[in-house]
Amino acid sequence: MAKEKVCILGSGNWGSAIARIAALNVKKHSDTFEEEITMYVHEEEVDGKPLSSIINEKHENIKYLSGVQLGSNVKAEPDPIKAIKGATALIIVIPHQFVEKILEGMKEHLSPGVRAVSLIKGVKAEGDKIHTYPGIISSLLGIRCSALGGANIATEVAQDQFCESTLGIPPEGMKSDDKNSLSDADLWFKLFDTPTFRIRIVPDVDGVALCGGLKNVIALAAGFSDGLGWGSNTKSAIIRIGIMEIKDFCVHFFPKVKAETFLEESCGLADILTSCISGRNRKVAENMVKTGKGFQELEKEELGGQSLQGPQTTEQLHKFLDARRDEVRRSNGFPLIENVWKICYEGMPPEKLIEGL
Amino acid sequence: MAKEKVCILGSGNWGSAIARIAALNVKKHSDTFEEEITMYVHEEEVDGKPLSSIINEKHENIKYLSGVQLGSNVKAEPDPIKAIKGATALIIVIPHQFVEKILEGMKEHLSPGVRAVSLIKGVKAEGDKIHTYPGIISSLLGIRCSALGGANIATEVAQDQFCESTLGIPPEGMKSDDKNSLSDADLWFKLFDTPTFRIRIVPDVDGVALCGGLKNVIALAAGFSDGLGWGSNTKSAIIRIGIMEIKDFCVHFFPKVKAETFLEESCGLADILTSCISGRNRKVAENMVKTGKGFQELEKEELGGQSLQGPQTTEQLHKFLDARRDEVRRSNGFPLIENVWKICYEGMPPEKLIEGL
Repeated sequence: MAKEKVCILGSGNWGSAIARIAALNVKKHSDTFEEEITMYVHEEEVDGKPLSSIINEKHENIKYLSGVQLGSNVKAEPDPIKAIKGATALIIVIPHQFVEKILEGMKEHLSPGVRAVSLIKGVKAEGDKIHTYPGIISSLLGIRCSALGGANIATEVAQDQFCESTLGIPPEGMKSDDKNSLSDADLWFKLFDTPTFRIRIVPDVDGVALCGGLKNVIALAAGFSDGLGWGSNTKSAIIRIGIMEIKDFCVHFFPKVKAETFLEESCGLADILTSCISGRNRKVAENMVKTGKGFQELEKEELGGQSLQGPQTTEQLHKFLDARRDEVRRSNGFPLIENVWKICYEGMPPEKLIEGL
Repeated sequence: MAKEKVCILGSGNWGSAIARIAALNVKKHSDTFEEEITMYVHEEEVDGKPLSSIINEKHENIKYLSGVQLGSNVKAEPDPIKAIKGATALIIVIPHQFVEKILEGMKEHLSPGVRAVSLIKGVKAEGDKIHTYPGIISSLLGIRCSALGGANIATEVAQDQFCESTLGIPPEGMKSDDKNSLSDADLWFKLFDTPTFRIRIVPDVDGVALCGGLKNVIALAAGFSDGLGWGSNTKSAIIRIGIMEIKDFCVHFFPKVKAETFLEESCGLADILTSCISGRNRKVAENMVKTGKGFQELEKEELGGQSLQGPQTTEQLHKFLDARRDEVRRSNGFPLIENVWKICYEGMPPEKLIEGL
C-alpha cells in the first residue's frame, strides 16, 4: 500500500492546532503516512520576516498559535499549488470567504486518488440553493470530501486538554472499495484521533458541516438573552429551541442529514454549548444589547476588524429562506433564525427574540 | 363535567412557585377548575407564627419564596389528609425522602378519579430494582401519576421569565377514555401552561422523572471539570458524554423510556445544561476539587445542613449497578457515573474523571 501524503491548506489558529495533531499521528502511524506534512501558509511579514520561513525555522506559528510546537515534520509552503504536490490527503481549513479563490485552478494539479476533509465553518446560500463547504470542495476539485467539527477551541486542543471531535464521512467513504487503500473513515481517524482528541465517526458529512456552520445563530440568540439579563431558565430554553430549529432546518433542506448528528455528537450539542457559553458571537451579541451598538461597530471595536460568523450566517439563511418562502410558509417556519436576523439587520428590539417561538 | 379540585402537596420554593402558576390558571379556566387550591404546608414557626397562618394571611410564603404573591385562592393547610379532601388533581412536590411517610395512609382518603403529577427529583434504588417517584406514588396511592420537569429555577419562574417545561404523561393518560372528564394531558396542560411557562407534552412519564433524577450526576462531573480548571472543550465533552450515558442507562433499565426525552426536551437537555452551568451540585463539586474537602463537609458549610441531591443519586445508582453487575459487564458500562461515585465516596482523585470514558 502506497503511503498517504498529508497537506494542510490553511495556517490560522485552528489550522496550526490540527497540524500539530496530524504531525504527531503521521509519525505514530509511519506505515500509513509519509512523515513530512506540508502546510500552505498565506504569506505575510511578521517581525520583518516571512511567516512561512519563521514556521520552518522555529516550528511554531508565532502569529496565530504562539508557544506551541507544530512538529519539525511540518513544512510551511506559501504557494498552494506547490503545497498540494504529491498530496493524497488534504486538510482544508481556510476561512470560508477564500475557499473558492484558493481552490480554483487546483484540480489539474491534484494527485490521483486524493481525498479531502473540510474544517471550514459556514454555509453558502445562492438564491434558493444552499451549500456546505464539503459540497463546494467536492464539486470544485472533483474529489470526495469529509468534514471534521466539534467543541474544539484551538488553544485548548494545542494544550492536549481532553475533548471530542466528530468526523462526518460520505456514505461511500465509510468502507474502502479498494483493498489497497484505506477507507476515508480509517484514513482521517488515524490522522486525527489521539488519547485526548477523541474522534467519533458518523456517516453524515453535511450534518457535521452544517452544525459548525449554523451554531453561531444560536450563540447570538444566547448572547442577546445574556445581554437582557434574562436568567438561566430562559437561556436554556433558547438554546434548546435553537438546537431543534437548526436541526429541523437542516433535515428539511438536506434530507440525507441525520438528526442525531445535531443532538448527540460533539459537532452538534457540545459545540453549540461551548459557543453559547463562551464564544465571541455570544459576547458581541451581549454587548449589542448592553451598548445599543450594531454588530458592525462592535466587530471593529472588539475584533480588530475581523468579522463575526454569526450575523453573516444569519444573513445567508435569511436570504435562502426568503427565496424558499412558499415552502417555509407551509411549515412552522424558523422563528428563532428569523428573529436573530431581524435583531441584527432590521433593528428589532432584542426583547422580541422570544416572539413566536 | 364536574370541576377539578387542585391540591398541592408541598410548599418549598418550587412548590410555592408552581402554586402561583396553578392559582392563576384555575381562575383562567374557571369552567374546568374550582377556584380554591389547597396547599399542604409542613408546619413550622416563622417569626413566632405558624407558616400556614402567614401564608393564609399574606398569600406569600415568606420563608421559601418571599416577595412573591401566591394568589388569594391558595389556602395553606398543615394536615395532609385535610388538604387532599375532595381533591381530584394532586400536585406532589415533597422532598423525596418524605414522600412515603406523607403519602402512607392517604389512599383511603382520596376522592374517586383523583390523579397526580410528580415534581419530585430523584430515584430510589432497592437492591436490583430502581424506581421513579411517579411509579412510587402510583403504587402507594393506586392512581395514575404524571411528571413535570424542566429548566425551571423557581425564583425565575416566579418572576414570569420565559421558560419551558416538559409534562410526561403515562400512555393511557394521553387521551381520555371518558367523555365526561379531561385526559391527564389536557388536565395538567391547562393547569400549568402560561405564555411564559411553556408546556410540551411527551408520553413518557418515567423519562421526565429520570431526567430530573439523574441530571445532578452530570452536574457533579461538570463541577469537577471546573474545579480542575479544565477548559470549555473538556466541559462540553463531559456534558455530552454524561447526557448520552444517563440516556443509555435509562433506556436500558426502563425499556419504555424514550431517548428523545433526554436529547430534545426541556426536562433533559435544557435542565442538564442549567444544572451544569449554575446548579449548586456543580458549585459544591468545584469546591471539592479546589479545597480538597468532602461533599459532606461542604454541604454543612455552604448549604446550612441541607443535603445535595447529586452524591445521593450517584450512590443510589452505584448500589443498583452493583446489584446488576453481571448485566452491566455485558454492556460498555457507565464509566462517568462510576467515576463520579468513586470521586465522591472512594477518594479517587478528580483528575481521573475522564478515565475509561
